Order: sequence, then C-alpha cells, then structure tokens
Amino acid sequence: MFEVAELGHKIKKSDYEAREPELRTNLLLLQEALKEAKFPVLVLVSGVDGAGKGDVINQLNAWFDPRWLRAYAFGVMSDEERERPEYWRFWRALPPAGQIGLYVGSWYSRPIADRVNKVISDAELERNLTRINAFEETLVDDGALIIKFWLHLSKDAQKQRMTAMEKNPATRWRVTALDKKHLKQYDKFRRVAEHTLRNTSTGDAPWIIVEATDTRYRNLTVGQHILERVSARLQNQPEAQAPQPHLKPIVAPEVGDKVSVLGNLDMSRHLPKDKYKRQLAKYQGELGELARQARERKVSSIVMLEGWDAAGKGGLIRRIIPAMDARSYQIISVAAPSDEERAHHYLWRFWRHIPRGGNVTIYDRSWYGRLLVERVEGYARQEEWMRAYAEINHFEELLTEHGIVLLKFWLHITKDEQLRRFQEREQTPFKQYKITEDDYRNREKWDAYEIAVNDMVERTSTEYAPWHLIEANDKNYARVKALRIFSEKLGLALDR
Amino acid sequence: MFEVAELGHKIKKSDYEAREPELRTNLLLLQEALKEAKFPVLVLVSGVDGAGKGDVINQLNAWFDPRWLRAYAFGVMSDEERERPEYWRFWRALPPAGQIGLYVGSWYSRPIADRVNKVISDAELERNLTRINAFEETLVDDGALIIKFWLHLSKDAQKQRMTAMEKNPATRWRVTALDKKHLKQYDKFRRVAEHTLRNTSTGDAPWIIVEATDTRYRNLTVGQHILERVSARLQNQPEAQAPQPHLKPIVAPEVGDKVSVLGNLDMSRHLPKDKYKRQLAKYQGELGELARQARERKVSSIVMLEGWDAAGKGGLIRRIIPAMDARSYQIISVAAPSDEERAHHYLWRFWRHIPRGGNVTIYDRSWYGRLLVERVEGYARQEEWMRAYAEINHFEELLTEHGIVLLKFWLHITKDEQLRRFQEREQTPFKQYKITEDDYRNREKWDAYEIAVNDMVERTSTEYAPWHLIEANDKNYARVKALRIFSEKLGLALDR
Repeated sequence: MFEVAELGHKIKKSDYEAREPELRTNLLLLQEALKEAKFPVLVLVSGVDGAGKGDVINQLNAWFDPRWLRAYAFGVMSDEERERPEYWRFWRALPPAGQIGLYVGSWYSRPIADRVNKVISDAELERNLTRINAFEETLVDDGALIIKFWLHLSKDAQKQRMTAMEKNPATRWRVTALDKKHLKQYDKFRRVAEHTLRNTSTGDAPWIIVEATDTRYRNLTVGQHILERVSARLQNQPEAQAPQPHLKPIVAPEVGDKVSVLGNLDMSRHLPKDKYKRQLAKYQGELGELARQARERKVSSIVMLEGWDAAGKGGLIRRIIPAMDARSYQIISVAAPSDEERAHHYLWRFWRHIPRGGNVTIYDRSWYGRLLVERVEGYARQEEWMRAYAEINHFEELLTEHGIVLLKFWLHITKDEQLRRFQEREQTPFKQYKITEDDYRNREKWDAYEIAVNDMVERTSTEYAPWHLIEANDKNYARVKALRIFSEKLGLALDR
Repeated sequence: MFEVAELGHKIKKSDYEAREPELRTNLLLLQEALKEAKFPVLVLVSGVDGAGKGDVINQLNAWFDPRWLRAYAFGVMSDEERERPEYWRFWRALPPAGQIGLYVGSWYSRPIADRVNKVISDAELERNLTRINAFEETLVDDGALIIKFWLHLSKDAQKQRMTAMEKNPATRWRVTALDKKHLKQYDKFRRVAEHTLRNTSTGDAPWIIVEATDTRYRNLTVGQHILERVSARLQNQPEAQAPQPHLKPIVAPEVGDKVSVLGNLDMSRHLPKDKYKRQLAKYQGELGELARQARERKVSSIVMLEGWDAAGKGGLIRRIIPAMDARSYQIISVAAPSDEERAHHYLWRFWRHIPRGGNVTIYDRSWYGRLLVERVEGYARQEEWMRAYAEINHFEELLTEHGIVLLKFWLHITKDEQLRRFQEREQTPFKQYKITEDDYRNREKWDAYEIAVNDMVERTSTEYAPWHLIEANDKNYARVKALRIFSEKLGLALDR
C-alpha cells in the first residue's frame, strides 16, 4: 500500500510560493469557522523516521493561529501515567470542541514500536489495534474529526535523508543511533506499519499516506488535505448529528410476565440491629486492613454507587470511610459538568479523575448517568445513550485490565419505601435540604427509570465488572452486603 | 503555646449526642449557603501523630455533603511533581469558589518534618515559612477562607494513645515504626511546630490549637469552629470585597520630562535583510542545539511574549519554532478563562499548565494580563491589580528557583508604526482576520496602556526574571534580538 507514495511527487519552488499564501489564508479562515463548531479536530502526524513529522508540525504551527491549536507529544511515561491505564494520557490530551490537536506520536507509536522490537506478539498487536479502533470510534461517534497522516519514505529515500542530515552540522544531532537502528529495521517496520494502517483505516478515520521525499509536496499535501476534510465536515454537520435510523430503542418485553433483574430481587431481606453492629464492625475492620495493603501495593479500587433517590448512597459512604485512612480515599460526587467538560466527550470528565495507584475512589453516581438520567430525561439523544453501553464497557475494561478493582453497586428500594423515606426526610432537620421538588418529579418517572436500570444492568454487567444489586429496603442489610462484597473483591484482587 | 491544649478538655457522651445533630444540620445548611458564595474554604488538619487527623477528616466527610467537599493528601512526590516547583501540587489541589477543601497534610508537612530531621536549617525553615505566608496571603487576598487546625496531644497523651492503639487488633497496624520514632522526637517536634505556628499564624489565617485527647471534644470543636468561621465570612462578604483605602494607584510622574523605560528605547534600531538572514539562521541553529541539551537535562524554559497589538508576537513565535523539535515545545495563547478557571485565583490557570521538565513553553500573552488589559479596562479592581505585582514576583521566583529559565519579552512599537501595520493587515488576505474593531478601540487607550506597561516593567523586573524590552519597529531587528537573548540565557543556564 505504500507504493502510491513512492512515485516521486514533487512541487517546484515557484509553484509552492504561488500556492502557499492562499492555503495559509484558507487555513486561518477555516480555523475561525471551526471555533464556533461543536466538534474537535485531531491531526495525527505519523510515519517513518526522517520523513519530517516534526517539520510538518512546525509548519502547521506556523500556518495556523496557535491560539486554537495545541500540539501533543507522548514521551516516556511518567509514574503518574504508569499508575493509570495507558489511555489516560491520551484522554488527557484531547482538544476541546472548536479546536485542533496536533499529535506527533500518538496511540499508534507504542504498539508499532513494540511489535517491531518483538516486545509484543502479532496477537497482542491485534488486540492493541482493536483498542485503538474502539477509542477512535468513541471520539468520532461523539463528533470528533480525526485526520491521520502517514508520512512515507522509501528505504532509499530514508537513507539519503539521513546521510544529508548527517552532512549538515546544523541537523547532524538529529540523526541518532536509534535512527540508524531504525533504518536497519526498515523492512520490518514497513510490514508492521502496513498491517497497522490496514487494520485501523476505518471509514470514519482513514489513513492518508503522504509521500514525504519532497518537503514542499509533503507540507502542501498535508495542509490542503486538512483544509478539505475540515471544510467538508463543517458543511456537513447536520448529517453527522442526525439520529441513526438503524438504532432501535431497547424496550422491556411487552408480552408475558414482567420479568426483570430488579423484579427478581427479594426486597424483604433485612438484618437485625445486633447482627448489623457486629458485622459492620467486622467488615469495616477487614476493609481497613485490605485498603492499607492495597495502598502499599498500589492496587486502586473504584466503588461506584448508583441507586434510586433516597436509596441510601450517602449513608453507605459514611459506613465505608471510617474504615479507611483519610489519605487513601476520595469521594467524587457527580454534579453538573463544567464548560471544559462539556466541550469534551462525556467520558472525558471521568478519565480526568482516575486516581493514582493505591487509592480508593468512591463515586456517588457516575458515568452511568448517561444511561439513566440522560436517557430518561432526554438530555442525551437516543444514538448517544445507545452507543454508551459499548463505550462504558470498553472504558471499564481498560480500568480493570490495568488492575483497578471496580465495584458497581445498584442500591434498590421499592417505590413505597422511597415515599416513606422522602416523608421521613422532610421531618428530619439535617435531611430536609436533601429533599426537593425534583425528587418527586423523578418519582413520577419511576417506570421509565426502571426500564433504563434493567437495560443498564443487563448490558453493562460484564465478567470483569459485574453489577452488584443490593436489596436496600433495609439499610442495615444493604450496608453490610455492600461492605462484604467490597471486602471480598478487594481481598481476591490482593490474593492474585 | 500548646499549654492551652493540655487542660484536659472533655465532652461527655450524652452531651455529645445532644449537640451533634444540631451541629450537623447547621454544617449542611452552611454548605448550602456556601455554594452560592464566590470564595473557597480551605480546612487544614495538622498536628502530632496519634491526635486523630484522619479521624477528623473522616468525621467531616461524614457530616458534610461530600458533593461540595474534597479531601486532599500529599504523599511522596510523583516525578511529574518533582519536575515542577513544589507549590505546583498545592495549586493543583485548591477547591473552586463555593467549595471546601480538606487537607490532611499540607504545605506545612515537609518543612516541619525536614527541620525535625535536620534536613534543613533554621534559616531554611524560615524561608519556607515566608513562602507559606506569601502563598496563603495570595489566596486570602483573593477571598479564600483558610482555617488551620493543629491537633495537640501532650507527650503522655501521645504515648497512651499509641499504647491503646497497639493493644487493639483493629488499629494495631496504624502504629508504625515511624510513629514510634516520632514519639521519641516529641520534644523536638514540639519546638519546631511551635515556631512554625507562631510564624504562620497571621491575622488572615490564624492557627487554632485543639486539644485532641478526647475525641468527642476534638471533633465537636473542629466542627463548631468551621461553622462559626464560615458563617462569619458569609455574613461579612461585602467588607472583604471593598477596596482597601491604603492602596494608591501608581501614576506616571506628572512634572518634568516624561521619563519612562519605554520612552528611553531607541526605536530607530534596525537590521538589514542580509545580516538578518545570517543571524536568524545562526541563532536558530544555536537554539535548536541548546533546546536539545535542555531536554536531555530536563531544564525547562518559559518564553513569555507581551507587547502592543501588531508588535509581531506571532511572527517571532514562527521564527522560534523552526529551530525546535516539535516534541519539545508548546505554544500557549492566553484566551478567556474557562468557568473552572474563573472559580479559582487568576494565577491558577497558569500554574495548571506549568510544563514538565525539559520543555520550552511559549506564552502568547500571559499572567501579565492582570497588570495590562485587566487594569486598563477595569476588569480587575484596583486592589486586585495592585497586589498582583507582588503575587507575580513571588510566582516567578518559585519558577526560577526551581531552575526554569524564564524569559519575559516586551515587544515595543510606536503608535505610528502600529497604525501602519493595522492598515497593512487590512490589505493582506491572511492577516485580515487578525484585525478587528477592538484593535482600534485598544489603540485609543494607548496612553493608559503605556502607564501600565511602565509600571509593570519597573515593578516586576527582578534579578531572577528581568524584562527584556525589544525595539520592534523593525521586525528583523526584533526577532534577532529576542532569539539572541533566549539563546544566551538558555546557554548560561546550561553552563551552570
């Protein structure tokens, strides 16, 4: 597939000078228009050594207005990065809507290098590519425009480029021992790159191979292509935003008995006070000890609490924390997103707060808002929440593969019990602030929420991150059950 | 000074149980009111080992609604933290306006521990405390409420607490070898702590010493004190926001010749084209080589460009970057702050983007906006920009002390030259977008800006971070001069 980029494309200096000012003007106008758009643009500049990836980035930095542009590079991982899933660094480096991110090096760099250097097998490369496709699809589905350039040089051209650079004192330093090693690996690199490009050139994010022998041709081609792709996308926005007709909403079965995961729970479960006190102390003690070990061994856990209003999330949190060292946990309550968060994919705000190794993070509500309140209230369009099942499963897979212990609890109460608790809250001074008209409004949509919860549990209960349904009509029973599960799972993870 | 906290304060269980629900209700109501306030609250919980710092944090986490609360702890520095000034981690951990940050460990922890362990001298401790005071003053001046608790135990009480914890299997793990070492160092620790508290107990951020022998007394005291301080501040807000009468605006001398740093520049300086080309290539080459060395040695630089509209900041940036590896620099153009940024001190957004070691960061406009556009346009109140001189000097001191090479350029052009360039821009297709009515409006305020610039240069040109004034009526001259200075200063820093 690289043959198309070995044809000897060239642009004369005079032609370049005639065309460059117009291109530059258009790129600046484009950027002005983009600022108002509700999507980000990612420009990846990859390719063989010596093809001028850095020069292209420098040229783009000079053509564009740097105010709405940001270049990202990924060096050796910092320890903060190593303590989180690999994709954390990429999520950190996403441009907000209306802006352009330039990538010199990207999520492709490590897998390609690792395969060339035999650090990973063909099967592992494949797995990496699947991951890349899922990542890019997540972004594209959300509206991002991803433009991927591969700058190509033939083996001879690469050799010549290096020799020329070595002769020039000003550029000699750029030719490192590593580059020479890479030149020797040219054939292998080409095979791995070809395989990678073929398997990640999707309809939504295709690769553009650019012949890089002639720098004028290379730069003009890159600039011109960005201009065309972004312009097309700007003119085409409504289409990308329209609902996708092949997606159908998920509805509960309409015939037969109402069978659902929530319906199957035994809501009469309870725990007498004396047993509760004993078991609470027992599991708090266990958890404290396990959390301490986890901290030493840098094993993180995420405890995620979802449930009906007044199901007892706050009370459960207050029972978890006495067991813990105040230095080792944080509680994240999910409120309305900030404007920076709104300018990114909805998962971005959760990636942002992935803790460093060894911590316990307790979420009071979570990314599942997409599948619950956003679905039921219509804040997310149907195709947005429909694809969120897969996005969330993928997200959680990355977390758990990294070794994070992920516990997802649904605290379930009956509709009657909720009413009782609302009324009780209205009588209790320090609980009154918790109860608002919204709570009663949400209650009216109980059935719609129930369908959403059932769908959520069915579609996001995975082997690596199952839902734990907690019968919570009796608070004592619920608290002990959740603490016990947390303790067991953390213990298992530490035994591994 | 710790004697007041060795009097044997105690609260009976029945009294505690009678008072706690009301305190809790009030804390929740307080938090509700705080959400609307335009200031953050910082609660530091410090003190001797075994005094229950973590328990207090856990209790506050249980009393408050965790949604508007965040606990911060500072462990061993990550490499990302080590590559930046020490205060970066503290600036990262500031709550936004309307929220409460709880600190278990803080900017006090390292200096106190280092002095006790003789890692630093008395003089160095003093220096650290001065720094702490400057940091807290910066936050308080901006409206933050800082509440600092010191939990105290007498030597005997500390010993008893440890013995009791060791006897209980559930808490035994909490008593580490380190704690035992600390017990031995009790007297020394007490002396250092007393000195620290005395010298950082300012009117704006006083220390509160709490006797911690009785946990009920300790917790109730802390909760009650937070309630009182935040309530008082909420009722008192207008006063804190009022202009401070002892501050006087800085004005240019009104008699005699108009003498100013800008007025003294020789604006006729220029560089012929052939010399320009030669020198540009020379300094670009030097810079490229130096930036490469700096990257290897993790020496960062910050190049900050300020200047009149159309003074040539963009053109200079385009002349700097061809020398650089695209992986080693980033350009940050300062646009309007996001809502997260607006909810913090104005310097927060700049701390946020301090680069990791070895990078070049180019600022197109900077934190000096506070002293220029915000002053002239009245976006900042007088006392805000008046205190910004000291805040910025302090900020830059922390940067340069960490080894960051900080270059501040003011690109100066005359009023006539600016008009000529505006008109030229209007004729050039790819420059038209740059020229707006705002530019002409700003031009009308030339004199006010000139006063602001003169004040800025005089008051923020420090030994560690001097201003470099660039005569920029001739672009060639300006570019070469700036590149030469950058190259020289970076070279000097690498020679050290």
